[in-house]
Amino acid sequence: MAVTLDDKTVAELRNLADRLRIDSIRATNASKSGHPTSCASMAEIMSCLFFRVMKYKLSEPRDKSSDRFILSKGHAAPILYAAWAEAGLFPVDDIMNLRKLDSDLEGHPTPRLNFVDVATGSLGQGLSVACGMAYVGKHFDKASYRTYCLIGDGESAEGSIWEALHFAGHYRLDNLCAIFDINRLGQSEPTSLQHNMEVYRKRLEAFGFHAIVVDGHDVEELCKAFDEASATVGKPTAILAKTFKGYKFPTISDELDWHGKPLGAKADEVIRAIEQQMQPGTATGAPKILEPLNDAPVVDIDDLRLSTPPAYKMGEMVATRFAYGTALAKLAEHNSRVIALDGDTKNSTYSDRIKKVSAERYIECFIAEQNLVGVAIGAGCRNRTIPYVSTFAAFFTRAFDQLRMGAISQTNITCVGSHAGVSIGEDGPSQMALEDLAMFRSIPGSTVFYPSDAVSCERAAELAGKTKGICFIRTSRPNTAVIYENEQVFSAGKGHVVRSHDQDDLVIVGAGVTLHEALKASDMLMEAGIKAAVIDPFTIKPIDHDLLLKEATRCNGRVLTVEDHYPEGGLGEAVASTLAEQRNIIVKILAVREVPRSGPPEVLLEHFGIGAKAIAEAAKKLVAL
Amino acid sequence: MAVTLDDKTVAELRNLADRLRIDSIRATNASKSGHPTSCASMAEIMSCLFFRVMKYKLSEPRDKSSDRFILSKGHAAPILYAAWAEAGLFPVDDIMNLRKLDSDLEGHPTPRLNFVDVATGSLGQGLSVACGMAYVGKHFDKASYRTYCLIGDGESAEGSIWEALHFAGHYRLDNLCAIFDINRLGQSEPTSLQHNMEVYRKRLEAFGFHAIVVDGHDVEELCKAFDEASATVGKPTAILAKTFKGYKFPTISDELDWHGKPLGAKADEVIRAIEQQMQPGTATGAPKILEPLNDAPVVDIDDLRLSTPPAYKMGEMVATRFAYGTALAKLAEHNSRVIALDGDTKNSTYSDRIKKVSAERYIECFIAEQNLVGVAIGAGCRNRTIPYVSTFAAFFTRAFDQLRMGAISQTNITCVGSHAGVSIGEDGPSQMALEDLAMFRSIPGSTVFYPSDAVSCERAAELAGKTKGICFIRTSRPNTAVIYENEQVFSAGKGHVVRSHDQDDLVIVGAGVTLHEALKASDMLMEAGIKAAVIDPFTIKPIDHDLLLKEATRCNGRVLTVEDHYPEGGLGEAVASTLAEQRNIIVKILAVREVPRSGPPEVLLEHFGIGAKAIAEAAKKLVAL
Repeated sequence: MAVTLDDKTVAELRNLADRLRIDSIRATNASKSGHPTSCASMAEIMSCLFFRVMKYKLSEPRDKSSDRFILSKGHAAPILYAAWAEAGLFPVDDIMNLRKLDSDLEGHPTPRLNFVDVATGSLGQGLSVACGMAYVGKHFDKASYRTYCLIGDGESAEGSIWEALHFAGHYRLDNLCAIFDINRLGQSEPTSLQHNMEVYRKRLEAFGFHAIVVDGHDVEELCKAFDEASATVGKPTAILAKTFKGYKFPTISDELDWHGKPLGAKADEVIRAIEQQMQPGTATGAPKILEPLNDAPVVDIDDLRLSTPPAYKMGEMVATRFAYGTALAKLAEHNSRVIALDGDTKNSTYSDRIKKVSAERYIECFIAEQNLVGVAIGAGCRNRTIPYVSTFAAFFTRAFDQLRMGAISQTNITCVGSHAGVSIGEDGPSQMALEDLAMFRSIPGSTVFYPSDAVSCERAAELAGKTKGICFIRTSRPNTAVIYENEQVFSAGKGHVVRSHDQDDLVIVGAGVTLHEALKASDMLMEAGIKAAVIDPFTIKPIDHDLLLKEATRCNGRVLTVEDHYPEGGLGEAVASTLAEQRNIIVKILAVREVPRSGPPEVLLEHFGIGAKAIAEAAKKLVAL
Repeated sequence: MAVTLDDKTVAELRNLADRLRIDSIRATNASKSGHPTSCASMAEIMSCLFFRVMKYKLSEPRDKSSDRFILSKGHAAPILYAAWAEAGLFPVDDIMNLRKLDSDLEGHPTPRLNFVDVATGSLGQGLSVACGMAYVGKHFDKASYRTYCLIGDGESAEGSIWEALHFAGHYRLDNLCAIFDINRLGQSEPTSLQHNMEVYRKRLEAFGFHAIVVDGHDVEELCKAFDEASATVGKPTAILAKTFKGYKFPTISDELDWHGKPLGAKADEVIRAIEQQMQPGTATGAPKILEPLNDAPVVDIDDLRLSTPPAYKMGEMVATRFAYGTALAKLAEHNSRVIALDGDTKNSTYSDRIKKVSAERYIECFIAEQNLVGVAIGAGCRNRTIPYVSTFAAFFTRAFDQLRMGAISQTNITCVGSHAGVSIGEDGPSQMALEDLAMFRSIPGSTVFYPSDAVSCERAAELAGKTKGICFIRTSRPNTAVIYENEQVFSAGKGHVVRSHDQDDLVIVGAGVTLHEALKASDMLMEAGIKAAVIDPFTIKPIDHDLLLKEATRCNGRVLTVEDHYPEGGLGEAVASTLAEQRNIIVKILAVREVPRSGPPEVLLEHFGIGAKAIAEAAKKLVAL
C-alpha cells in the first residue's frame, strides 16, 4: 500500500499546495474578508487529498461511490473552493467572486455548491456528519468509498468532536479518516494545547483511533499517513498534522492577530515569496484525479409509505410515542433505506421497534445528542438513507446548533421528540420539553408535526419521511384516545375541525394532550351554554391559516389556544401571528407560564393552567370579550 | 494525608451506604417511579463523601466556605435526598414524599431544595458547573473548599463532559474531584465502554487528570482515593469507580431492563437481603460531619453599576457590541466580582475589554460553548460572582440545553450574543444569529435585551447584571448611530417612542439595526405623505405591552414589526402575541424568511426584506388595510 512518492509527484503536490495558498490569498483579498492564514496551514493536506489520495468524479461531485470530504473548519472555505477549481470543476478565476451576493462561493461552504454535502462554519460539527457517511458506507452501502474530515485544532475543543470520535472508535469505522490541522493559533489567542502533539496522540488513541503524528507541511509524510490510514483495518485513523497558521507567509506565519484577515497590501509580496519557492516546470495543467470504484448501490428513498394502514379502534387509548414506533417499523418494512437513530432512549421513544424489522437499521448513538443529529445528517447525505432520529424532545435542545446548520445544509431528516410537556408527570422539569416547538419552528424550511392521536401520528411519520427539510414530530407520553378513522387523510399544513356546532361562540386550538383537554372543555362549556369548536392543527408549521381564519371568523373572532409548552414560540404564537393581520379576531393563549415541577400528569395539566377546567374558565372569560 | 480507616468507620460507612440504598428503594416505591438501581451503584460513594470526606454545614447547606457537591446524574436524586436526610438536614421519612406535587423532593434535583445548587437531570451538564465552582474557589475566593461532581457512565458519552474535562485539566483545577459511577448499564442497553476501566483511565489521563480506578463498592478504596485526590497538587482528580447497577439487589444487580423502575413487590425482599448484610450496632444515630474552614470571603454582588455613565455624542457611529465591551469594563471597575467568560471570540464580542481592568477576571473557555455556559452557571452559584458570558449569538444555540437547565437552576447569568442577523454580511448564514431571540424568549423567567444604540447597550449590560434569571443581550456587528442622550433612563420592559407625529398612520417596531432602518423608512414615508411612528422596545421580553397598545391604538391599530431574525419566536411574534387579545389591531411582521447568504450587510438587509425600502413598501400596503 505505502508507495514512496517519486520526486516529480512530490514537487507537483508541493506546487499545488502553493497554488492553493496563492488562490486563497487572492480570493480573500478580492472579498476584503476571509481567512487566508487558516487556509495556508492546510494547503499540503489539501493538495495530497485532492490530487493524490481521494477518488472522485469531477463530472458528478456528489457521485454515490466517490470518496467524501468534509471541511469541518468551514472558515477555510477559500482553499476548498480553490482545490475544486484547480482540479478543474470550474475556472480558477471564479474564486475571485468569493463572498459576493450573486456567487455561491460564500464565506463558509454550503450545499448551494454541488461539491459540498453539508454546510460548515459552526465549528466542531463536521466529524459527526462524516461518521454518518462512513457508517452508511460501511453498513448500508457496503461500498469502498472513504470519508475524510478535516478538523481545525481550535474546534477540537468542541465536545461534539469527542462525541463523534467516540462513535467512530466504538463502531470501528476504518473507512473514516479524520485529519487535524493543528496550527496552534485560535481566533483570539493560542489554542489550549498549542503544538502539544503527544497530548493529541494520547487522546486520539484513547478514543480508539489509529493516530499518526505528521509534519503537516511535508507531502511525503502526509501521503504515507493517508496510505497507512487506508490500510488500517478495524479502527478509524486520525492524522495529527503539525502545521503553522499562515505557513509560507513571511512575517505572518505562526503569528497571532492574523485570524480572519486578508493580507491586503502585503498580498503581492507574500505571493511573490511563495512563488519563488515553487519548482518550475511542474503542475502547470489540471492535475490527474483518481477514479472511484462504482460500487455503491442504486437506492430509492422516494418510495416511502406505511406497509399497512393504521389499524386502531376509535376511542382506543394509545400514546402517540407508541404509534410512532409502530409507524417506523411499517416504513422500514416498505423501504430498506429507512433507518433509525437514538440516544439510549429507544425503549421510551419506541424507536426500538425498527429492530423487529431489521436490527441492522438501528444505530445506537448513546447519550450524545449533538452527534446523534450530526450522524443522522451525514446518513441522509447524497440521498443514501431516510433517517429518523429520536430522543426526548427536551434533549433535542442539545443539538440546536446542529439543526440550525442542518437547515443551511439542506438536510432531509425527521426528528421525533417524545415526552413533551408537563404531561410526562413525575420526572419533573428537566425531562419536560416546553421549548421544542419554539426551537423547531425557528428552523427555516422546517415542518413541525404535533399529532394528537395514533392514526395521525402514523401518518405524520410517513409524511415527514417524504417532506424535504428538517421535520419534527412531537409525541406524547400518556395514552390518549384515537379520534380519527383509520382512513383519514392527512397532509402538512392542513388542520382538522374535530368538534363544531351551529353558531359556535369560540374556537379552541389544542394539540397532543391539550387537544383532548380541549374536547373535554368543550363538553363542560356546552353544559354552561357555551358552544366551543375544536381544531386539531396537525402541523404547527406550516399552520393552517385558511382553516383558522375561516373558523375564527365563524366563531365571532374568538380563538383560544392551549399548549403543553411555554408561551413563547409555540402553538399560541403560531396562531396569533398567522391571524395578526386580521382585524376583529382575538387570540387568547394558554400555556405553561412558569418552571413546572414533579407531580401526576393530570394534576399538572390543571395546576399549570392547560387542563380542561382551565380551558373552560378561559373560554368563559373570552366569550365576554 | 492517607489515613487507614479503622474497622468501626469502615462498618459505619458500609452500613450508611446500605441505609441510603434502602431509603432509595423505599422512596421510589412510594412514588411508584424513579431510579433505585442507579442509586444503588453509588451508595458507597455517597456514604464516603457525605460522612467521611466532605466538609459542610448542615445549618447552612449553601454556606460559602463549604465543599460543593453536584449530582450530575440527576436521576439518582433519591440517594442525594437520602444522604442529606441521614446527615440530619430533615427527617428521613420525608423522602417518602418523593415526586409529589407538594414536595420539593422532585424526580430530579432542583434548587427549590436548599442543598441543591443547580438542577440536574439533563445528562452531562454537572461537570461544567463544577468547573465553574472550582475555578471560582481557586482564583476568586482563594478558599479551601473543594468541589465534587458525581457523573454517570452513560452520560460520560456527552461531549459537554469532555469539554469540561478539558477545561479542568487545562486550568489544573486541583480543587476539583470528578467521580465516575461506572455501573456498566445505560437505559436501554449496556454503555459503549461497559466496565472497560483502562479505557476510562487512559482517556482521563490524556485529558490532564490524575485518574484512580477503584472498586466503587469498597469504602476503604474510595476513602483512600478521596484522600489522594485532596493531596494531589496541580491537576484535578478523577475517581473511576467500577460499580454495579442495583448493587446488593438480588436477581436485579447488574441486570438490564431495571433502569428507572421501582422494585415494587420485590422491594421488601431486597431490603431484607440488604439488612441481613448490615453489621449490627453501628451507625444508628446521625453521622458526624466535618466542619468547613470559614475562609471564603464575604462578597457583594448586588452593588452593581457602571463606574461612569455612557459618554457618547448623538449621532456618533458605534457598534452595540463595542459598547458592550465598554460597559463590561466599567461594571468590572465598580464591582470586583464581575467576571467575563468567552469562547475564543473575545476580540469580536469585545469581552476582552475586561482584561484592561483585570486580566484575572476573564476566563477563556475556548471553542466549547456548552462548557462556557456551564462554567458561567457554576461561577454564579452561591452568589459568588456576576458572570457575563459572550460569544456570537448564533453559537449560544450550542448551549440551549444548558440554558434550559439554567432556568430550572434559578441561575443568574448574562449572556451576550454578538453578530446578530444578516447584517453581519459576508461571513454567511452559519455565523448569523436568526433564531436566538426565539431561543432566549422561550426560557422561563428570562429577560431579553435588544439595545439599538451604544447608550442603551451600556444600560442593558448594567440592568442585566442586576436582573435575576437568565438575561440575554443581543448585540450587532455594524456601527449604528447613537440615538439617546447619555442621561436617558432605561428599564426592562419599558420601550421608547423614538419618532412620532400628530396623527400617525402606523407605528413601526424595530430593534438593533432594524430600528435604524425603520427610522430611515419613516423619513421615506413622510415624503410619500404617510406618517409613521417608531418604537424601540429595548427588551423583547418582557415586551412593553402598555406602550405598544397605546401607540397601536393611537396609530389606527396598524403595527409593523421588522427584525433581523427569522419570523418565528422573535420580535414580531412577541408583539403579535401581546396584542393578540385586542380587536382592531393588526400586526404585520417583516423578518428574514429564508436561509440567507453572504453579501454586503446593507445589501442583505434589503435583499431579505428588512431594509428601509422594504419597510416603507410594507407600510404603504399596511395603511391601505
